[in-house]
Amino acid sequence: MYDLIVLGGGPGGYRAAELAGKFGIKTALIEKDYLGGMCLNRGCIPTKAYYSDVIGKIGNVKNMWDKKEAVVQTLREGIAQLMEMHSVDVIFGTGTIKDTSDVKKIEVETKEGKKVIEGKNIIIAVGSKSMDIKFENNNLQEVIKGDIGVTREDLWKTDEVKSVVVMGAGVIAVEFAVMLKEMGKEVTMLKHSKEVLRKSDKDIKKRLISTLKKRKIKMIDSFEIAKVEKKENSIVVYGSSPKGEKEIECDRLVLASSMVPILEGYGLENSNIEYDKKGIKVDKYMKTNLDGVYAIGDVTGGMMLAHVAEYEAMAAVYAISGKDYTIDYNSVPYCVFSDPEIASVGLTEQQAEEKGLKIKIGKSNFMSNGMALAMGKAEGFVKVIADENNKILGVHIMGPEAATMIGEAALAIYAGMTADQVAKCVHAHPTLSECLKDALFSLVG
Amino acid sequence: MYDLIVLGGGPGGYRAAELAGKFGIKTALIEKDYLGGMCLNRGCIPTKAYYSDVIGKIGNVKNMWDKKEAVVQTLREGIAQLMEMHSVDVIFGTGTIKDTSDVKKIEVETKEGKKVIEGKNIIIAVGSKSMDIKFENNNLQEVIKGDIGVTREDLWKTDEVKSVVVMGAGVIAVEFAVMLKEMGKEVTMLKHSKEVLRKSDKDIKKRLISTLKKRKIKMIDSFEIAKVEKKENSIVVYGSSPKGEKEIECDRLVLASSMVPILEGYGLENSNIEYDKKGIKVDKYMKTNLDGVYAIGDVTGGMMLAHVAEYEAMAAVYAISGKDYTIDYNSVPYCVFSDPEIASVGLTEQQAEEKGLKIKIGKSNFMSNGMALAMGKAEGFVKVIADENNKILGVHIMGPEAATMIGEAALAIYAGMTADQVAKCVHAHPTLSECLKDALFSLVG
Repeated sequence: MYDLIVLGGGPGGYRAAELAGKFGIKTALIEKDYLGGMCLNRGCIPTKAYYSDVIGKIGNVKNMWDKKEAVVQTLREGIAQLMEMHSVDVIFGTGTIKDTSDVKKIEVETKEGKKVIEGKNIIIAVGSKSMDIKFENNNLQEVIKGDIGVTREDLWKTDEVKSVVVMGAGVIAVEFAVMLKEMGKEVTMLKHSKEVLRKSDKDIKKRLISTLKKRKIKMIDSFEIAKVEKKENSIVVYGSSPKGEKEIECDRLVLASSMVPILEGYGLENSNIEYDKKGIKVDKYMKTNLDGVYAIGDVTGGMMLAHVAEYEAMAAVYAISGKDYTIDYNSVPYCVFSDPEIASVGLTEQQAEEKGLKIKIGKSNFMSNGMALAMGKAEGFVKVIADENNKILGVHIMGPEAATMIGEAALAIYAGMTADQVAKCVHAHPTLSECLKDALFSLVG
Repeated sequence: MYDLIVLGGGPGGYRAAELAGKFGIKTALIEKDYLGGMCLNRGCIPTKAYYSDVIGKIGNVKNMWDKKEAVVQTLREGIAQLMEMHSVDVIFGTGTIKDTSDVKKIEVETKEGKKVIEGKNIIIAVGSKSMDIKFENNNLQEVIKGDIGVTREDLWKTDEVKSVVVMGAGVIAVEFAVMLKEMGKEVTMLKHSKEVLRKSDKDIKKRLISTLKKRKIKMIDSFEIAKVEKKENSIVVYGSSPKGEKEIECDRLVLASSMVPILEGYGLENSNIEYDKKGIKVDKYMKTNLDGVYAIGDVTGGMMLAHVAEYEAMAAVYAISGKDYTIDYNSVPYCVFSDPEIASVGLTEQQAEEKGLKIKIGKSNFMSNGMALAMGKAEGFVKVIADENNKILGVHIMGPEAATMIGEAALAIYAGMTADQVAKCVHAHPTLSECLKDALFSLVG
């Protein structure tokens, strides 16, 4: 009998198994596809492999694809080694929860047949998938769901596809649109509303829309797809916006719509685990309503980010080991690999206003940052939201290396620091981080 | 009469003037050359402008030079605007301290003639220069001092110079050697000892030497130059190392030796201000032995870094305004724009050992960082030095975006945080900062 069975080998699941193994907890990890989950195989990593090849220097698409494959393969092997190093039994197969009483039972359908494994604890980390969007012919080969988009050779491995319509305006939609456009394709974004990156700070949204326009990415607001029809060598997307009906001819349609937790296919519906369509319900230690049953990551319907899943894994494994760790969700950063990069942590200006907080705003542009100018990448800004006492509530960055720079901002919010404290910590020159420092200093009296 | 006269318009001086102006202190700034000082005109900024054009993608040297000029010009104008915005009187000319009693007097020789300006306080921020290295013919046109090296058209604007010998193994020497080699020149480093970057952590040094070798930069240890002789189209450097005498033919010799404070040419020797050859003596508020006389930056002979000068400017101006700020020199980061980048903050392993501290070392390689792999830049590592209680004492990074990443590490040390605290702050995925997080987690029990 295992101490812990982890269902799902994505960033939440494999981190949970790794840490549990490190703690000497006898652990099994069940994965039905590839180790690394959506993040590694169909999400973050492949898109970033493309990103670094595409932005500012599009090369040979064949090389780009091969590099992506190699990177993904290397990281998969790395996880397998990690599991071995920490004595985690990895079982490839589809797991179904059969019993959630004291001795938990999961039936696994492997290539070699079915077997039942038992454990004292379960962590459910099965992730999320693209929401189904219903319209006529949504199952055509030319219609691509967001959660498998990066693995489609027709989009990334050849130059044959000339025009792509992207439905959505979230992170996946923006990243796809920018990269596909940079690869020389004609790109149209069909947005659900007027917005892009709905939860982002308003200044980020505004500037992002202007950079998308500058790139000649077409955008149609508040569009709804009615149907898709196949033509000889293309497809036609029919739908409507407040401005009227519209048909758009293109080679491919990517449905980069919202992600929803996976709640079927692993016995959840036949268990006593509490959940609704938003996800499995958990407390701050990631425990469900049942003792010894935990859920982490996208399946809980919280912030659907790989790194949140990783840290929730820590919370759950700590709880199982009698230690205490909970995530500070207020200091969770997130990144969008548009060009320039976008990275945010904490409250946006709108959120702070909705909470009725009195806030101060500090801002600095990369145009006055020596390093950004030297790099020839001086587009963008850093915006800091602070309370009356200068306590940092949020930091929003659009600019070069934003995803790296957000680390310092997240730590500052995590530690409850003020703009004065962080600004007065010496920042190296010449670095991009001086733009954060300058935004902070603009708040210092 | 001014409240404050700042002597020198480099990163220390202009920041002091800016802040003083912001505080409503009536301020004059005296600069004999260009605003921005060595850092902007002959140091950090021009090298980084070259760097971003050279590393990994050498283009047209003419464009590179023009870009550098444009960046420097933009930033100079930015400083001029900043001075105007804060009502600082900028006086171009050479200042000489004439009186350091209650009413301080500085005589300025401008294009229009001499004038004396008076002030209640003085901040001396005249900076540093390359140490003179004495050998026969050290004044040849082909022999270039480090502190003007970046402005030499023969090095950076044409492809005519094919081989360069760099004397030294400090930051300037390493940056020059890597860039010139990347531009296709033959490069030989003549090191004063066996070391590179003497004050860096030993693992950084070791890895740096191996990357320099991989780039086919020749290195000769413990070399001393005896003389240089001019040949028809080249020069010959004669000298010796423990292995015997040696002569090296090359097109140019760059003397990238130590920087020394400037102690002549502005009346210091005729004043009562205390100083020795290491620099002007100051307390932690940057005050000299005389009331109302402050010195900041390289001229004080401390950490000769532009950002230290900037923060010392703040300390001095705060002191003048009756506020309190002192620098935490233990959390001052510094960067070396080699390839990969190097950035460090806090104690090295050697320094911690010399202090007799019991330390723990955490390490992580970029080879297991998804973002670094995706970028194709997985060379390097993060090394963390912590004390017995996991308090972070030093962080040393060699790898992509190290200069940006060091901001988080510096803040952690500044705030006295432990590896556990920083590791448990959520780090975004996929980012390079996860390599820092992983190095920290390797210290967490």
